[in-house]
Formats: sequence, structure tokens, C-alpha cells
Amino acid sequence: MYESEIRKILMGVKENHVDINDAIQNLKDLPFQDLGFANIDHHRQIRTGYPEVIYCEGKTVEQVKLIAKAMVEKNVNVLMTRVSKEMYEAVQSLHEQVEYHESARIIFIKCQAIEVSEKKVLVLTGGTSDMPVAEEAALTAEALGSQVVRLYDVGVAGIHRLLSRKDMIEEASVIIAVAGMEGALPSVVGGLVEVPVIAVPTSVGYGAQFNGLAALLAMLNSCASGIGVVNIDNGFGAGYLASSIIKQIEKERKHG
Amino acid sequence: MYESEIRKILMGVKENHVDINDAIQNLKDLPFQDLGFANIDHHRQIRTGYPEVIYCEGKTVEQVKLIAKAMVEKNVNVLMTRVSKEMYEAVQSLHEQVEYHESARIIFIKCQAIEVSEKKVLVLTGGTSDMPVAEEAALTAEALGSQVVRLYDVGVAGIHRLLSRKDMIEEASVIIAVAGMEGALPSVVGGLVEVPVIAVPTSVGYGAQFNGLAALLAMLNSCASGIGVVNIDNGFGAGYLASSIIKQIEKERKHG
Amino acid sequence: MYESEIRKILMGVKENHVDINDAIQNLKDLPFQDLGFANIDHHRQIRTGYPEVIYCEGKTVEQVKLIAKAMVEKNVNVLMTRVSKEMYEAVQSLHEQVEYHESARIIFIKCQAIEVSEKKVLVLTGGTSDMPVAEEAALTAEALGSQVVRLYDVGVAGIHRLLSRKDMIEEASVIIAVAGMEGALPSVVGGLVEVPVIAVPTSVGYGAQFNGLAALLAMLNSCASGIGVVNIDNGFGAGYLASSIIKQIEKERKHG
Amino acid sequence: MYESEIRKILMGVKENHVDINDAIQNLKDLPFQDLGFANIDHHRQIRTGYPEVIYCEGKTVEQVKLIAKAMVEKNVNVLMTRVSKEMYEAVQSLHEQVEYHESARIIFIKCQAIEVSEKKVLVLTGGTSDMPVAEEAALTAEALGSQVVRLYDVGVAGIHRLLSRKDMIEEASVIIAVAGMEGALPSVVGGLVEVPVIAVPTSVGYGAQFNGLAALLAMLNSCASGIGVVNIDNGFGAGYLASSIIKQIEKERKHG
Amino acid sequence: MYESEIRKILMGVKENHVDINDAIQNLKDLPFQDLGFANIDHHRQIRTGYPEVIYCEGKTVEQVKLIAKAMVEKNVNVLMTRVSKEMYEAVQSLHEQVEYHESARIIFIKCQAIEVSEKKVLVLTGGTSDMPVAEEAALTAEALGSQVVRLYDVGVAGIHRLLSRKDMIEEASVIIAVAGMEGALPSVVGGLVEVPVIAVPTSVGYGAQFNGLAALLAMLNSCASGIGVVNIDNGFGAGYLASSIIKQIEKERKHG
Amino acid sequence: MYESEIRKILMGVKENHVDINDAIQNLKDLPFQDLGFANIDHHRQIRTGYPEVIYCEGKTVEQVKLIAKAMVEKNVNVLMTRVSKEMYEAVQSLHEQVEYHESARIIFIKCQAIEVSEKKVLVLTGGTSDMPVAEEAALTAEALGSQVVRLYDVGVAGIHRLLSRKDMIEEASVIIAVAGMEGALPSVVGGLVEVPVIAVPTSVGYGAQFNGLAALLAMLNSCASGIGVVNIDNGFGAGYLASSIIKQIEKERKHG
Amino acid sequence: MYESEIRKILMGVKENHVDINDAIQNLKDLPFQDLGFANIDHHRQIRTGYPEVIYCEGKTVEQVKLIAKAMVEKNVNVLMTRVSKEMYEAVQSLHEQVEYHESARIIFIKCQAIEVSEKKVLVLTGGTSDMPVAEEAALTAEALGSQVVRLYDVGVAGIHRLLSRKDMIEEASVIIAVAGMEGALPSVVGGLVEVPVIAVPTSVGYGAQFNGLAALLAMLNSCASGIGVVNIDNGFGAGYLASSIIKQIEKERKHG
Amino acid sequence: MYESEIRKILMGVKENHVDINDAIQNLKDLPFQDLGFANIDHHRQIRTGYPEVIYCEGKTVEQVKLIAKAMVEKNVNVLMTRVSKEMYEAVQSLHEQVEYHESARIIFIKCQAIEVSEKKVLVLTGGTSDMPVAEEAALTAEALGSQVVRLYDVGVAGIHRLLSRKDMIEEASVIIAVAGMEGALPSVVGGLVEVPVIAVPTSVGYGAQFNGLAALLAMLNSCASGIGVVNIDNGFGAGYLASSIIKQIEKERKHG
Repeated sequence: MYESEIRKILMGVKENHVDINDAIQNLKDLPFQDLGFANIDHHRQIRTGYPEVIYCEGKTVEQVKLIAKAMVEKNVNVLMTRVSKEMYEAVQSLHEQVEYHESARIIFIKCQAIEVSEKKVLVLTGGTSDMPVAEEAALTAEALGSQVVRLYDVGVAGIHRLLSRKDMIEEASVIIAVAGMEGALPSVVGGLVEVPVIAVPTSVGYGAQFNGLAALLAMLNSCASGIGVVNIDNGFGAGYLASSIIKQIEKERKHG
Repeated sequence: MYESEIRKILMGVKENHVDINDAIQNLKDLPFQDLGFANIDHHRQIRTGYPEVIYCEGKTVEQVKLIAKAMVEKNVNVLMTRVSKEMYEAVQSLHEQVEYHESARIIFIKCQAIEVSEKKVLVLTGGTSDMPVAEEAALTAEALGSQVVRLYDVGVAGIHRLLSRKDMIEEASVIIAVAGMEGALPSVVGGLVEVPVIAVPTSVGYGAQFNGLAALLAMLNSCASGIGVVNIDNGFGAGYLASSIIKQIEKERKHG
Repeated sequence: MYESEIRKILMGVKENHVDINDAIQNLKDLPFQDLGFANIDHHRQIRTGYPEVIYCEGKTVEQVKLIAKAMVEKNVNVLMTRVSKEMYEAVQSLHEQVEYHESARIIFIKCQAIEVSEKKVLVLTGGTSDMPVAEEAALTAEALGSQVVRLYDVGVAGIHRLLSRKDMIEEASVIIAVAGMEGALPSVVGGLVEVPVIAVPTSVGYGAQFNGLAALLAMLNSCASGIGVVNIDNGFGAGYLASSIIKQIEKERKHG
Repeated sequence: MYESEIRKILMGVKENHVDINDAIQNLKDLPFQDLGFANIDHHRQIRTGYPEVIYCEGKTVEQVKLIAKAMVEKNVNVLMTRVSKEMYEAVQSLHEQVEYHESARIIFIKCQAIEVSEKKVLVLTGGTSDMPVAEEAALTAEALGSQVVRLYDVGVAGIHRLLSRKDMIEEASVIIAVAGMEGALPSVVGGLVEVPVIAVPTSVGYGAQFNGLAALLAMLNSCASGIGVVNIDNGFGAGYLASSIIKQIEKERKHG
Repeated sequence: MYESEIRKILMGVKENHVDINDAIQNLKDLPFQDLGFANIDHHRQIRTGYPEVIYCEGKTVEQVKLIAKAMVEKNVNVLMTRVSKEMYEAVQSLHEQVEYHESARIIFIKCQAIEVSEKKVLVLTGGTSDMPVAEEAALTAEALGSQVVRLYDVGVAGIHRLLSRKDMIEEASVIIAVAGMEGALPSVVGGLVEVPVIAVPTSVGYGAQFNGLAALLAMLNSCASGIGVVNIDNGFGAGYLASSIIKQIEKERKHG
Repeated sequence: MYESEIRKILMGVKENHVDINDAIQNLKDLPFQDLGFANIDHHRQIRTGYPEVIYCEGKTVEQVKLIAKAMVEKNVNVLMTRVSKEMYEAVQSLHEQVEYHESARIIFIKCQAIEVSEKKVLVLTGGTSDMPVAEEAALTAEALGSQVVRLYDVGVAGIHRLLSRKDMIEEASVIIAVAGMEGALPSVVGGLVEVPVIAVPTSVGYGAQFNGLAALLAMLNSCASGIGVVNIDNGFGAGYLASSIIKQIEKERKHG
Repeated sequence: MYESEIRKILMGVKENHVDINDAIQNLKDLPFQDLGFANIDHHRQIRTGYPEVIYCEGKTVEQVKLIAKAMVEKNVNVLMTRVSKEMYEAVQSLHEQVEYHESARIIFIKCQAIEVSEKKVLVLTGGTSDMPVAEEAALTAEALGSQVVRLYDVGVAGIHRLLSRKDMIEEASVIIAVAGMEGALPSVVGGLVEVPVIAVPTSVGYGAQFNGLAALLAMLNSCASGIGVVNIDNGFGAGYLASSIIKQIEKERKHG
Repeated sequence: MYESEIRKILMGVKENHVDINDAIQNLKDLPFQDLGFANIDHHRQIRTGYPEVIYCEGKTVEQVKLIAKAMVEKNVNVLMTRVSKEMYEAVQSLHEQVEYHESARIIFIKCQAIEVSEKKVLVLTGGTSDMPVAEEAALTAEALGSQVVRLYDVGVAGIHRLLSRKDMIEEASVIIAVAGMEGALPSVVGGLVEVPVIAVPTSVGYGAQFNGLAALLAMLNSCASGIGVVNIDNGFGAGYLASSIIKQIEKERKHG
């Protein structure tokens, strides 16, 4: 396809119905198409209802609003993470479908319908306090088209609750395990399942938890195999990674 | 299914063709069956030629030999990681197919043939010095049935080499990016592709690299989305995680 | 007892005075009783007036209130740690006996009388500023039925005050030593006594105290033997551990 | 009481039925008795067969030998920790009962018989590589008179093995949980039992395990209550603390 | 020139038209001129319009105002960094040309015109959130006479934007690369150019970014050569260093 | 001597010229006299106008007021460190001489005149922002009777100012060097003088200064000999240590 | 130039003397030429006698030899850093000009003459033990064509030696300051000069120097402006950065 | 004095018996004379028998020998720290009085007799393993002319031994407290005495002692006042600081 595009332009030049200056302009953009897969993605995003993502922390309300506005005008879905209430107030009138999830600090502007995957992402938390991060993961995965199942507060102290939902575990294609404190949940889960486990350390805890460091180190050192770790409190990253796995499976499901 | 098992036992008791003591014995075991998925896995391992894994660091040569011997006698494949040369010498006569990869510190005892996946894992390294860890990842993934493609020494300074192999990248279903020093490779790769990326920080570097800490932190903080990180120098973990993803895709490919 | 319960149900089924569906319902809960010793504890808690514990940090006021309400309705004692004033205001009308300890950040809802142990826990602090953590420990231990003796502000500079209360020390079965700054108190105490010492580092101090890290490391490295350390500022954990020791001794005292 | 002792001696002197030299001898010990409980311990040690402990790391072989010799001459049991093979060779002829445990790096010189406790200490390890530390704990506890039960290699991946030995767990009065890597074992165990749990992080692992730091932090942040943590690889400290708890229970068992 | 000043004074003394006490007064300052090259700079600063710099963090508004006032009275340019809004309000009436850059936290009081360099400093940022630090760098460099070109938001995810501005890169004599998160920008840029690169890690990010530590370590460990790193968020330092390089080149350009 | 004291008392009792109650009183104090040199100090403090010190951080306003009141009633000088404005308001009416130093966060209640030393403590700072810590040191030393000379803002960039005051340096018996950022001042000073240098790292700086850690490490690693370091921002500790040195010299000066 | 290349190809196609397939081939390569400045550099390297650099740590002797051989065959200068003696032995026969600097761990294979710059790099060290790192910097800079002046052992304790060589300082266009321990040298030097200063922390020191961390932090926090820091012990990086600055000045000197 | 020097030169110029060029030369040199106090010290060292110090770690045997030889030829005492056995063998024939202290890693070449102070330095250690560091301190202090008293192995567990030597403590003018593990000794000692205490953390310990970090932090955070801390294992620094205090007292004793 890429080669054929060049060929088409060259043929146009050769056959004199394409102006050389226009050809130069088009060819000058090629490297970026070649380098920046993101651009190609970008086109696909518009086509598939895939969202553009804005990481809002460290940006001003005004900056965030301008970026969101530009995207909404392109009619793409917009996923905004780490938002403040002020940001929500600034963007809520941009579109009729602006969902605000306060504790997860997420805004989702749904300009396009989303095709939901058949394969499932299971999101687990160790405790109630890990829920905002877990919701960031779950909402991100949903915005990216993954079907998400939530099972919260199933940490070491309540592991029997997890075990009693064997059905949920067996139906998941990817598991996101969110935990603070000593971060043991992914190790326990990873010992029980065969599917990929994405571990999200949270800053829940105090003292020598060092804002998530204890959980992070525990997850990196898990004696269970097959665990990929994301940054502390990075629900978004986990949701994104889970969806990129789901997407590979779905691709096979449909075309395999 | 679980409920139906209990019902069957109870019906048996009710209808007097199951002895109460036998029923008690069966019902008492329920929790362990529920817990120990690993055991079920274990049977599948034997059936599918899946390897048993021995992490050899911190074990004596004698311990390692005894464990390996017991496994070989069960006729399962055995993947031994972090081995020493002494360990190789101790186990090399256990079976006719004992492969020893010195720099990767891996021994693979192939008692069973492996079915190789159609989907591919691409293993990248930033530099030549990251190769032992990359090989640990690649050999692990191969031992677990994944088809592996290697592309080494394509770090930031040589990124054009990576870009010139667009075909390789486009054919991969999972990418493992192994890098030391500043650990920027996964960020660059993650910006170019859509498939899941597994980042492996290595202890290659000196000074403020702090034995892999710099690369680890960089990977955890990648501005590219969809990256899962494993422990420093943990090639095994990356190979295992990649294979668990491949397995989900393959399952769909075959049965989807 | 456990086995006899199953037998009773089975006999009921066999003898037709227990419906199979009711039996299934009861037996379905068994695995959790078997796995989750906590559940068995839970029954004992109701019986013995043992409290349920709610760690309130990171939970919303609403969440905390709902959990507390559910527990009060089961008529169990409720120990709430790391509470805010708002939480107190939200729960104070749930029961007539809601004790609020502001500096210790503890709420205790006493639905049941507590049987106080004969054996004593001695709680020491290095300084006045360590008192909130010490109170968290003392109130926890009391809520769990331990008799608690307090001796505060007996750090290195005032160690003669400790020495002059030899009686207190000799009567304790467990000692909790709470200290910030350089955390030397457990070392000094541990050199003087034979009973188990639980060391609680506090974040009291500044600069290179690094919010309790200095005290934590000192306690972990104590040259005195027989010291168990809990997390920084973790008065609750110390009180709980002390009480679990007291309970073992009391069990022997009563039944030994 | 303290005052009355002095008064009695003084009255004796005043009334001439106490010799001044005897009075001086008694009064001279007061400060040390008051301060140095260790001295009183020391006498008890000789009487009860309690061992003297020599921490050998950082001492020369010659120093270690001299200290051990002096103790053996006092006919007390001697527990030597962190010994080298050279130290063993230097002391093995000091007494006929010199036990050397190479992997645990412990020497025990048994000059006196030990009365073994009825109550039990259960020592668990996460993996095979944690065994040397676990043995240091177990041998220490035994040298201090505790009855020890060992259950090794029951980490997260093999937790069903632990659960299948419910009898062992239920009979223990104290549990020592030794684990490296992510250090999740104490959390899992602490969620299952009521007795005090002593957590020993080990330096087993690599990369971001940071020589035991990951396991240490995990244990300090355990969401399970009632856990006391000792220094990394500090089997001795765990064995000592467990024994000090056992001793309190035994005291009650005998005299309660 | 320096020597000639001394000679002039001495000649004045010798020829009796300079009073010895006046001469002493003047010469008493010499050592500091000789030692403190800064003082000589100071004279040059007055002459060239070079600014005095006030680092305002940790100083009171009153202190800042007094220092600025004294400098303005000497008619030199004043660059104030890390200012607060209160400081701006306190100094804005000191001169008619008081520029306040709120997000960069910089005040520039332009008492003298600045000669702008022909050679250029290119300031890059990884993301939008790095802009305040980048502006601190750019404004500092401009205050010191460097011509500055800005190119923001060209991080790994948008590197094609950087590549499409090859002209900008090729015209720069020094590049300042400002980035948070994983700090990979300097590595990528350093691999593309030959000119000196100054890397500025920012505290933009969260979790294991540890307030800039992740980016700092990445930049120190860059596999690209020719990179000098400044402190986290130290835009001023980068702007100053860039200008000191520009100055060396300009000197050669003019007098070479 | 110690034995002879006891003998003397006992002889007095035996020979009836010492009352038993007096003897008890004396003998009861033995351990504390032996241990608690502080007590002897305490008496000397009252006699010499030496202050009692209250570290106020972490204490409530009410606690601080009660302690201060009790001390003022004993008519001793009271030095209160790390005070808040509220604490000043609470104690200012306790005595007519309540000095409040806001930036140094010190209150000094001067109930007794202080005899000022002949020997001098020189207090240096690297920058203006280090002044609050330096003042804590200077005011502490003055409260303890040391003559203090201040020389501020003489850091590396302004070292000629320090050198120009050679007289000040030569007259000092102890030097306190207070510096933040890279903490180089004590190294430079220590290379110039022979007297003891007390280094005080401050938390002045940002980024990789890590709240004083950079300065602390620099001072501990100074290549200049004869430097003792105190905690970050610990002006009080430096003033106290300096005064304890001055006191030893003064003792010799008077009685030598 | 870039645009003109495309135009030339297009004109060739239009005018029928360039085959379309050849045109496609050329246009497909554009992005890599655009991205890989390194390649262009590479050609310039061959032309100008610029060295290729091999970082040898973590590579096997065999790998190092093969890379060096390939380069020597291209007749370029080869700079090998972090070499071992074995590596020297392996490559010494590759060319007649193989210089081995043992303490600096550098091999330089001089296949081409080097044009030495007129402008100078001054390399300073704090102490004798910093010399290997300083030599790595100096030899690197020389290999890259910079004229280097060395002035060693001029740390804080010997700063008068530095000051007495004012001539050397004034003639330098860039200064590399290498120091371990507290790393104060760059701060002192930076306060004296106007030229860019490159700071190299070394791991020289012990205890809280933490293998160079103390020096690194000090240098990053220098109160002197205009300092760029490289990794701990990274003499190569400093030499490279210095040379890239020299090159910019020289370019101006020749063509300005 | 300084002003009068300038005046003398000016008068000479005015009165024509000083040449202007000579005057310029002299005036230009003023700063260096002002800076180099060290030189004056150096002369005093030769005069008083004060030693030159060579820090030998990181230097080659050859370098060390050359420096020592040069010093011995100047007939000054030479204190060599951190020596290896090879260094001793290299220098032992340089003089008839070469003392080698192997465990303290010190060589002292006594070319001149030392005048011993009347005032005493007391060196304490927590344990036997701290002795090498303590000896480095004691031998350094002795080489610098201080009278040293040693009291080893008086840590927290054996504090009664310290208390029983009240005489030693009362006679000391400075105390050096050397301790590893939790580093509590200086806190305990500092609470008992009035004289300055120099705290030396040692790397004795394991696990979370982090090679002396735990002891270092404890000492910096001591709740006892009047403690100055030196680097981990820095016996030399402590001995030097103690001697600089002794010297100030002795000066007063002799001339006061």
C-alpha cells in the first residue's frame, strides 16, 4: 500500500497529470508516515472510534480545553486522564457525551460508538482504597474497546472471595491486578492463572510503603511468572496494555 | 459445574449409593481443588510438552541435579535458568538432549517435542551487552512454544537499523525490548507499534545506572503507552509473559 | 467439629429432613470456612466481643460509614483506625458507645463488653511527640482485650525514669517501644528485658530522619535480640501483634 | 519494694546482724541490678542451660576462639552465628559436642542439656534458597529451648502444600515466615492464622530485589495484622524473638 | 587593562596627585577582583548589559526587593528566578521595564539593552508540561544575550515533528533538551546531532518518576555521547551553560 | 571512691550519726547519680543560668505551654526550638523576657543572666536562604553562653568576602558552617582553618538536592579534615556542639 | 538540498531518464537518510579521521576484537573505552599504532592523523585517585582532536595551586573538573571562570560517598552557574562533550 | 596588617625606593597570599612535628611510596591511612620508625617526637567488630598529639561496663563513640556527658544496615545534643576532629 502510493504519485508525474510541486509536497510527508506509525494509527483512530488520549496533569485548564476542543472537532473519541474538576467544567459543554469519573480522574468524550471486544479484561483490586486506580484502568480499557469485568477488594485477607469466582477468572483473557501496601495480589493471582497478568502498584499505604515503592518492588520481584508491571498508580497504562493484548487476540478471533 | 459436583455427591448420599464417610472425604477436599489451579496446570504441562522451570540461583549444584533428575524421570521438558557451568556438568548426562546456553545461563532439557506458534515474539536489544538477558528471554519463549525473532543492537544510536526492518516489526504480535543504560528503547519502540511491548531493564551501564535502576525507572515512566515492565535482567520473566500472550492469541487462532 | 457439621448435613440429606438445595447452599460455603480461617475467626469475634477493624485512610467518609453501619448491625465491636474528624461525625450516631480518640485517629464502637487479659502489655515512648502512635497501639491492644500499661517520654535522655519503674517492666509480658528520631529506645529496652519487644518507628524528627526511615533502620539493626519491628507509625500493627502474643499466653493461663 | 530492701540491709547494719562488707557487696550490685538486667539473665543462663551468643561476623578467628573458650570454661551452652569454616576448625576441639551447620553458618556448643518446650515454633520458607536463613532461625530457637517444626518451600506458587498441612499450622504457637523475592509469604500466612507471625526477609532474588529490600518493605507493609519483622537474612533474630514468646507461654503453662 | 589600572594608581601616587589613603581604598578591592573573577565580571556586566542573577526561593519578599533595588540602582540588568507573584508585586515599580513570566517564575528587569548573539540555542521539550522549565531556560539564555529558538512538545511520541524541522536543528549551536517522565529526549536528540546537548530533567510525571529522579538518571546514563546534565527542573542552569558556550563561539566569531 | 562512699554511709548508720531515712535517700539516688549525669547537669543549669531546652515540633501548643510554665517557675532559662507563632502567643506572658525569633523558630525565656564566653563561635552561611538555620545555631550558642560572631552569605560564589575577614576567622575557636545546595562551604573553610568545624547541611535547594541530602552527603565526604556534621537544618545541634567545645576551652581558660 | 534531491528524482521520472522502480527505491530510503544523521556523521568520520568508539564493558574479548578489526579495516581511528588487559592483548596486533592506557582503560588505534584544535580543554582533578577518570576524559578529547591541558590534584585542600596557575585557566575554552569525595571542585572552579565547566563525579571515597553519589549530587546542585554534569566516572562523556564544544568554536574560528 | 602591607608598598613607590613593576607584581599576588593559610599550617607542621597525612585508597603502591619518601626526606611525621599490606612492604625501609597497624590499616612514620596532650580523648566502641575503625581514630589522634584512652565493647548490651568506668568518662575532654548496627551508642553516651561527642558510624552489620547507613542516620538523628557525626568508617576524621578540639583546649591550658 505504502509503495503503491509512491508509485501512483510517480506515475502521475510521469504522465503529467500531477504537478511536480504537489508531488514534492506529498513525498516530503512520506518519512513521517513511515516513521510515525502513530499517524497511520491516527487515521485508523478516526475510522474505528479509537480515542485520542490527553494526559492532563501539569497542563493548564486552558491548554487542556484547547486540545480537547480540537479533537472533538475532528469527531474522535477523547480520553482525558488525571483531570481536575475545573477541567471537567471547562470541557463539559464541548459535546453532549462528556462522561466524568471523579475518583478515577477521567473524562471520556464519546464522539463515536465503540465496538466492544468479546474477550474480557478482569480488573482486580487488593482493597477498597485501590479503586480509583482500578477504575482508571477499567475505564481506559473500555474506552479502547475492551470488555471489562471488575472484582474489587479481593486482597490477601479476602482471597477466598477471588477463589469463589473461578468463573470470572477462567473467562478472562488478561488480568489487571491493582494493589497497594505489600503488593502481593499479582503474585497470588499469577500463581493461579495462565493468562497474562498486568500488575499495578498503588500508593495506598503509609510509612515504609514509600508512596507505592514497596508494592512496586514486590510486583517486580514476584515469584509468579508472566507478570508485567506498570508505574505506580498508572491505571491508564495497565488499561492500555491490556487492550493492546485484547486487540491482538480479537484480530485473530475475527480474521484467524 | 462446581455446584453440580456437590449435587451429585448429595444425591448419591440421599439415594444411598454413596457412603457418608466417602462423601465427607470428597467434600473436605473441595477447597484445595478450588485453590490449586497449579496442579491442573501441571497435568497439562506433562500433556503438552510444556516445561517445568527451575530457578537455579541460590540452590546448590546437588539440589539442582536432584530436582532436574526427578523431572526428567517424569519425561517433561525442563527449563533451568541462572545456571552455572558446574550445574551443566552435573546434569548433562541426565538426558541426550541437554542444551546449555552459557551466556544466557540457561539449560534446556528437551524430553518432549515443542509445537511452535505461528505468531511471533520479536526480541530487541539496545546494545551488544544486553544480549545475555535477551537470549534468556528468547530461549524461554522458545521453550514455551513461541516462535522468536531476534533483532539485536538497535538502540537509540542505531535506531535506523530498527526502522529499516519494518517488516519484522509489523509481523510481531509481541515485542520484548531489552535495554540497559538509560533504557529508552521501549519508549521509542512503544511509540512506533501497536502490539504489547514488554520492557526488560538490564544492569548494563555504570555509575548512576545503579545496576539497572536507571533503566528500570525509565521504562516504568515511559511516555509511550502499552508497556509492561519486568525485573532488572529478568529475561525469563519477559519470555514467559510474551508466551502467555502468544498462547492467548494462538488459542483464538486455532479455536476462534 | 468441622467434620461433624458436614456429617450432620449429610445425615439430614440421607434421612430426608434436609432439602438438597439447602444442603448445597450450606456446603457451598465450606471452602471459605476451610480456606479463610478468618471467617471462623469472624464467628469467634461475634462470640468473644472481638472487634472488626476498618483501616479508614484512602476510603471516603461514605464508604467508611456504610462498612461501620453494617458491622454495628451485626452487633460486633468495631475498631476504626486512621480516621478523620469527618468520619467521626458520620458514625457517632450509629451506636451509643462511640469513642473517638482524636490524636490517635481511632474510633472504637463498643457493641460488646471486652474481657480484659490478666497479662499486661507495656507501651513505652521515647518522647512526647510519639504519643499519638503509642495511643494507636495502646487503644488497639485494649480493643483486642489486652491489659495495657503506659509509660511515656522515657527516651535515652530520660532513661532513668524507665529504670526507676522496674516494677512496670517486670510485670509486662510484652513491651511495645515507640520511638522516632534515632529509634534507640527498643535497643536499650531490649537489652534490659527478656520478654518480646515490639518496636514501632515513628516519623517524628526531621531532615535525615526521612519520615521514620532512620528509626526504622535502627530498629531493624538493633544489637539487642528479640525485637520485632512494624511499619513506621504503625501503632495498630504493634497493638495487634502484642495482643496476639498475649492471647497465646492467656490461652495457656486459662487452659494450661 | 526497692526501698524496703535497702532499709532491711541498713537495719541489719545498724542492729549489727549484717556485716558491713556483706552490705557493701549487696549495695554495690544495686545500680547494676537496676540497670543491667542482663547480669541477672546471665546468672539464669548458667542455671538453665541457656546459651551465650557470639555474633562472629567481623571478628577474627582468634577473637572468636578466645570468647568461645572462655564461655565453654564457664560450662554454658554457646551459640555462634555467622561463622566461617575456619572458625569451626578453630573451636571444634573445645568440647566434645560442637555442632557445625555449614549452610546456616551456625556452631552450637552444647555444654548443658536443653529442656525442650511443649509449645511449637513453625518455620516456613517461600523457596529452597531461603533455607539457610530458615535454618539459622530454627537452630537458634532450638538452642533456646523451643520445639521447632520445619515446613519449607511453601511460597505463593506452592501455597496448597501449606494449606494441606493445616494440622501443622494449627499446632504452632508462633510462626516464622522466611521469604525472599517479593516477600508475600507472611502476608498470606498472616491472613490464615491467629498466632504471632515473625517475618524474615531474605536477600534471595536479583535486580530490583535490592538484596532483600523488596521483601523487607513488603513485609513491613503487610495488609495482614500481627506481623513483626526482623532484619534481612536475620534468622537468628527471628529464632530469638520466637523463643522469647514461647518462653512467656511456657512460663504460664507451668506456673499459670 | 587590569594591570594598567594598578599602574595608573601607582603612577598617581608616585607623582603625588593621588593621595595614599585613596590609593589604599582602591587597591584594597584588588584582591577580590583578582580572586573573585565574578567581580571583574561584575564590571563587565555593567558595561555589556549582562544581568545580575537573584535566586529568589528561600528568600523573603523583603530581602528580594532590597537586593533587586540595589542592583537596579547600579543600572544593571537583573534576572530573578524562582519568584513568587508577591515578589513581582514588590519589585514591579522599581523600573519601567520589569518583565514577569509567571509560569517560568522569572522576572527580568531590563536596565540595559542586550546584544543578541548570532549563534542560536535551540530549546526542546518532551511535552507541554515541561514548558515552564523550558521557558526558564530560554528566558535565562535570552537575558544572557543568546538568540533562542523554541520547539516544544517533540517527545518520543511526536519525534517526527522534531525530524521535520531539520533546519532548526542544523542551525543550532547548542541544544537544550527538557524532558520529564522517562527523560529519553536527550538520548534521541544526542543521537541525531553533533552540537553540545544540555539535558534538563523535569519533575513532570508521577509514581516511580520520583519527582524527576527517573529522568535525571536516564539522562546521566544516556548512550548518546556529548550530553551534559543539570539539576532537576533547573532551566536556569541550562540556559546559563548554553550561553557560556554561545559566548565562547561568539568571541571567536568576532575576534577569531 | 564509689565503694568508699557506700562504706561511709554504712559506718554512719552503724555508728548512729547518720539517720536511716537520710541514708536511704542517699543510697536510693546512687543508680541515678551513676546513670543520670544529666541530673547533676540539671542542678548546675539552675545554678549557672543554663537553659532547659524544649523541642516543640510535634507537640501541641498546650503541651508546650505547660512544659515552659513549669520551667519558668523553677526560674531557669528556657530555650524553645522549632516553635510556631501560636506557641509564642501561648507563652509570651509567662515572663517579662520572652524573646521570639520568628525565622529561626526560636523562643528564649531569659530568667537568668548569662555569662558570655571570651572564646568565640563563628557562624557562616553559604547563602541568604540558609540564615534561619544559622540563626537557630547562633541563638542556641548564645543561650548556652557562647560569644557568637555571624558572617553570612559567604558561599563559594562569594568566598572572597570570607577571605577578606581573615581576622574573624583567626579569632574563632569553633566555626559553624551552614550551607545548602552542594554543601561545599565546610570543605572550603575546613581547608583554611585549624579549629574544629561543625557542618550544618540545609534543605535549601531543589531537585536532586533532595531536601538537604546532597549537602549532607557532601559534608560527610569532605576532603578537608576535622569536620563534624549534624542533621539537615539542625542549627540547634550545631550551636549546642559548638558550645560544648567552647565550654571545655573556657574551663581551661579559667582554671587551666 | 533535501527538497532538491526529491525534485531531481521527480524530474528524472518526468523526463523519462529515471526508471520508476529505481525512483521508488530511492524515495523509500529518504526517511532513513533523514533520521540517521549518524550515517552522515559516519561518512564524515572516515573523511576527517574522527574515531569510531567502542564501549567495551559487558562485551566479550572476542566481540571487541571483531568490531575493532572491522573498523581498522575501514581505516578509521578507533577509540576503545573500559577495556581490559585481555582486550589489549587481543587487538594489539591489528595495527602498528595501538596505544594502551592501562589506568584509564583506554585503547586508541590511530589509523589516521588527527588535526589538533587551537582552543584548549583544561582537565582538572581534585585528587590523585581521580586520575584514571581524568585520563579517560583527556585521552578521549585528544582522540577527538581537542588540545588538552592537564592540571591534577588541585582539590579544595590544594586550591592555591589552581589559583597560582591563573594562566592555564584563562587560556582554556572548556574546563573538565573531575572530583570524588564531596565533589566541590566544579563549584569552586565554576565560581572563578566564565567558560563552560563539565563536572565529572568519581566514585573515589567511601562510606556515605555511595560510589560517587555524593559527588554527583553535589555537582548537580552546584551554586555556581554554567556547569553540566556527566555520569559517575564517565570521563569519556566529559571528553566527548568538551570536544563537541571545542568543535563549535573551532568551526567559527576557521570559517567565522 | 593587610592594609599596612599595601601602605608599605605604596610608601616605597611614593618615596621612589620601590620600582613600579615590582610593586605591581606584589600587589597582583596579594590574593594568593591571602588564600593560602594551608601553607602557613604546613610550615607549622614541620616545626611542631605534626604529621602529613596520605589517604592511600585509590592510589597505587608506587604513588604512595613516592609521596611518603618525599615527606620522610623533609623529616616530617607521616600518617598513612587506608593502607594495604603491599604499601607497608613498600615503605617499611624508608625510616627506622615505621609502625604498621594492620587491622586499622594505618602506617605511622615517626620522624619527629610528638608532644602528648594533657587533655584526653576517650574512644569507645559498641562492639568488638568496630575496633579497626576505633583504632584508626585512636592512632590518628595519637599521631596528632592527643592523649587517648580506649574503652571497647561497651554497646547497649554492655552499657553497665561503661557506667562502671565513670572515672574514665569524667576525665575525657572529648569522646569518640564508634558503633555499627543501629548506632545507638552516641545517643546513650551523649545523654550522660557534657563534653563534645564525635560519632563514627561503622559498616558493621548486615541487611538493612546498608553498609553503615542505618548507623549514620541514627547518629545524625540522635535525640542527645552535642554530637558531631563523621562519615561511615571514618576513624581518621574522628581522630582529627577530636585532636583539633584538644588543641584548642591545650592552647588555652598553656597560654590561657
